[in-house]
Order: sequence, then structure tokens, then C-alpha cells
Amino acid sequence: MEAEINQVADILLQKDSFLILTHKDPDLDGIGSMIALGTALRNKGKRVVLFTEEKLQPPLGNIKGAELISHHISENKFSATLVLDCSDLNRLGKAKELALLNRPLISIDHHETNDHFADINLVVPDSSSTGELVYKVIKKAGLCINKVVAEALFAAIQADTGCFKYENTTSTAFSIASELLKYGVSPWDVYRNTNEQYTLPVLKLLELSLGTIELHHNGKLGIMSITLNMIKTAGAYPGDSERFISYPRFIAGVEVAALIREIAEKEYKFSLRSNGKVNVAQLASIFGGGGHAKAAGFECKGELSELKEKFIKEVSNFLE
Amino acid sequence: MEAEINQVADILLQKDSFLILTHKDPDLDGIGSMIALGTALRNKGKRVVLFTEEKLQPPLGNIKGAELISHHISENKFSATLVLDCSDLNRLGKAKELALLNRPLISIDHHETNDHFADINLVVPDSSSTGELVYKVIKKAGLCINKVVAEALFAAIQADTGCFKYENTTSTAFSIASELLKYGVSPWDVYRNTNEQYTLPVLKLLELSLGTIELHHNGKLGIMSITLNMIKTAGAYPGDSERFISYPRFIAGVEVAALIREIAEKEYKFSLRSNGKVNVAQLASIFGGGGHAKAAGFECKGELSELKEKFIKEVSNFLE
Repeated sequence: MEAEINQVADILLQKDSFLILTHKDPDLDGIGSMIALGTALRNKGKRVVLFTEEKLQPPLGNIKGAELISHHISENKFSATLVLDCSDLNRLGKAKELALLNRPLISIDHHETNDHFADINLVVPDSSSTGELVYKVIKKAGLCINKVVAEALFAAIQADTGCFKYENTTSTAFSIASELLKYGVSPWDVYRNTNEQYTLPVLKLLELSLGTIELHHNGKLGIMSITLNMIKTAGAYPGDSERFISYPRFIAGVEVAALIREIAEKEYKFSLRSNGKVNVAQLASIFGGGGHAKAAGFECKGELSELKEKFIKEVSNFLE
Repeated sequence: MEAEINQVADILLQKDSFLILTHKDPDLDGIGSMIALGTALRNKGKRVVLFTEEKLQPPLGNIKGAELISHHISENKFSATLVLDCSDLNRLGKAKELALLNRPLISIDHHETNDHFADINLVVPDSSSTGELVYKVIKKAGLCINKVVAEALFAAIQADTGCFKYENTTSTAFSIASELLKYGVSPWDVYRNTNEQYTLPVLKLLELSLGTIELHHNGKLGIMSITLNMIKTAGAYPGDSERFISYPRFIAGVEVAALIREIAEKEYKFSLRSNGKVNVAQLASIFGGGGHAKAAGFECKGELSELKEKFIKEVSNFLE
């Protein structure tokens, strides 16, 4: 890791113009890392373009510095491309071509699945977040941290660690956070600003969804189901239920939680979470899906009751 | 603060037996601080009794080291009493007398309202938690930190800062957490272990409660109401709804959130939260209640509809 940090820091100091990108449908780790690195480089007099294909929507778009991000690029010559929090080039979408035009191509990422597509790959799966790695690069290059930089880095780390409680939370993440607070960052303001607030339709959808919870296999499997009709009744958006899986997941005794969402008529997306014992990536792979040991998923078509029955049956093999 | 830390550390090293207490209806900050300090002192060969009047229930009782806490005391001679996270002696309940018998009496606390009842008062309102102060005392006295001590301190700080996101989260809290993780503490395990898990009755009560949410004053006031009948229908316990206030509170645009709970027939408890602009302690005081600027409450008797109407009317004066 140290060698790559040094290489990246050298390039940041030597070159004078940078294109900074993150994956499509970006998250706070990617966006915060972009804003932090872009701002630190600009303050050093460098020319920097931060680019995402689409305009950021709230709450992500509420992050301070979001206005620095362009959605059109009028120039196409840079002395380096930095790709942040992105595991392969195809996840860049339209920016892929531009990224390849502007070498050296530098990847800074913490995804285990990163395919090392770049000329320099600062890829550290043990890192809590890409924000943590960007912090290290900024420090190594001696770039100045101001409040905008500090807030963006903090937002990245806070988001990817689930407020410093997920299993990827490292001692280093805490120590960087401690440092960033000295620049006036307020954890509460960042949290409030960049997290989904409820709307009445979301709460209506939650009310309807809670009514569908069922437990199987002696309470070890918890399932919540959401139909297109429920989304319509609530006046909500399909994406509004993405985090609802916490409800079946956090029922005492549950080992495997499933959130089944109808994404088109008789077409369903199963999101799976494990509380430790079951490898849900293996479970999902039986249905043609994939993911991580503790978070995975798959899609399928058919009648909800039949799909559910088949799934419940399969889970029993994993609970023994 | 430094003088008091030194004084407390000296006493810990010089004396040989300690009674350690926290306030009645204890929370994780108090309990974690007791277990950490008690364990560190025992490992140094000291005689220590940790006492709470009542047995700890889950999830609080799941904290590692809970078995070290006694609920009866057969001896009554100690060379010092340490009272942790407790703002006045009356909050000690039955242990008050025993505390006063065993001088010096040492108070370690971060409540602004602490009345400095002890012989030595290490009272630091700027501290994120009592756990943070206990950590400093342990370090100053050179007591050994092992995994039990580290986990208990981490649980205390994690709980009182709401996973390092509330406004009391300090740079020091992050830096101590960084240090504690080096002893093998897992933030996720501590979080899962010591936080309420859902039960089906709790989720049923949440479902029923979400159906009661109403917005007033152009969406700036959000109210959720819970009746005894709803609790009965859900098969839940009255305390199960304590955290439900997050739902009206986190609706976009809400400035004041109220959770109205029926605590006896036609007897109601209003819990109030402010998202910044309104001082809800002042609002509560109009109804004979009190609290902090951002979290307050009051109790009253009558017909729910009338009480609510009166309350809604009063709030308008605070929103202008």
C-alpha cells in the first residue's frame, strides 16, 4: 500500500490537470472522496474536473461541495485520470472512454472485487472506505485540508461504515475521524444532511410492508414482501423501500432476512442479509444471483407465493 | 479537569477497596463505565463491588462483564465510593446511604446538571460520555486495559454518542475509540449485542403507530400517537415505543416532533424533539414539563383529541 500511496502522491504533485471520476449511481464514499481530492488539488492551483453522468439528487446531492461536480465535459485533455471507489471500468458508464484517453489512469478503491484495471492501483480491501485511502494520499502529498475537504472525507467514511458500526470500521477510520473533527466537522450535521429523510409516502409504505413480515424455520428466517400495488397505494417510489430489510433482519433470533420487492409485474428482486451463520452469497447463487457472504441477492419471475415457497424450502438447507 | 483526574487516579492506586455505583434505571454509559473501571481495578488486585439495585435486562444486560455486577451487598466497608454518570445523589436510590458511608466520595460524570455532590467531582459536561472520562482516569492511573475493559468503554461511548453521530461526539471520543479497537473490540458486535432487537409485537406496534402520523403547520409539526389499546392489540410492552419518535422527527421539513403515549387511561406522556429551530424545553414548560432544548416532555390528563388540539395551537407560537 505504501508504495502506491507514494506513487499517487508524486503524480498529484507533478501533474497539473486531473479528471476525477467515480462509479455510476455513485454513493457518498465515491462522491465525498471526489470532492475532497478535487478541492485539495484545486487549492494547490491544479486544474481539476469532477464528473458524474447524472446530477446528484438529495440526500446525496446535499453534500457540501456537490456544486463542484460537472455533468458535461467541454475539454478532454488532462494529465491524469483518478477513478475513485470503482471496481471496474465498465462501472464508469459513459466516462470510460475519457478515462482511458487521459493516462496515467489511477484507481483508488477498497472493493475486494476490484479488477486492477488502472496503471496504478491503490486498492486496499481492508480499508474502511475509499475516503480513508484518499485521506492518506492527501496527507502524503502534503495537500492542505480545509473544512470542505474534511467534511467530504468524513461523510465518505461515516457513510461507508454505517456511522462507525459496520464490520469494516477500523481503528484507522476512528483515528482519521478524530483528526477531521479538528477542522470543525459536525458528525450530526453531516449525518442529517446526507441521509434520507422520511416522507409520508415512505412511512405509509413502511406501514404496509411491516404488515407482510413472516417468520419461518423457528424464527430463523424473516421475510418482508413489497408489491407494486403497495408502492402505488402508498404513493411512494420503488427505491423507497431499499433500507426496509433492517426490519426483518433485526428481529431477535433471525439468521437470514429477505426483502422481496416486485420490480415489474410478476418479476421480483430478493435482497438477502445474514446475521452471521449463513453465507447468503451461496444461497443467492442457487437462484442465479450473487453478492457477499452477509449481503447478496437475486432476481426471478413468477408467482410470488410459489417463488417464496421455493426460497423458504432452500433456506432450510443452510440453517442446519 | 487535569487536577481532578490526578486526584482520582491517586486514590485508585492508594486505596484498596471500592464501591462503584451508577444511577437508577442505568444506561450503557453508566454500566459500561462501571464494568471498565471495576475490571481494571480488580486486575490490579483491588477489592471492588459493582452494584445496581435491579438485575440488568437485555439488551443492556447483554454487555460483557454484566455478571460482575451485584444486586445485594453483604459488606458495607470500602475505602472509597465511585459514583459514575450520576448527576445527584438521589438518583442513586437505595445505594445513597451506603455511598455516603464510604468516603471519599468520587463523582465521575458528564451531565451539565451535575450538582457536585461528591468530595471529588470529575464533572466535564464537554465530555462525550462518562466512559470517555473513565478512560482518562484508567490511563492516568496506569491501570491495564484488556478486552473486557476496552469493550465496556467502547459500549459506553458508542451508546451515549448514538454511534458517533450525536452533537456530543468529540474528536477525543473518536481518538479513544481508535485506541480501544486495538484491543480487539468489534463495533458491530458491541452494537448488535447491546441494542434492542425487534420482536413481532414491536413491529406490529410500529405498524399501528405509523398509521397515526399527522403533520400540522405546513409540515413543520409531526405527531405520532400511541394508545393503550394499540399496545394491547400488538401484544407489546409500553416501553417498546420509546424510540418511535424518530419517525415523525425525520420527516423532511419537520421542525418539532411529538410522540404522544397513553400511559394510563386518559393520561398521556408527550415526548418532544426539535430539529434545531424550536426550544422544546420552553414549549414543554408551558405544559408543566421540562428537559433540554432539543429533547423535552410533559405529562397531562384528558381526552386525547382535546390535548392534541391545545398542543398544536401552542406550537404555532414557537414556529413563527
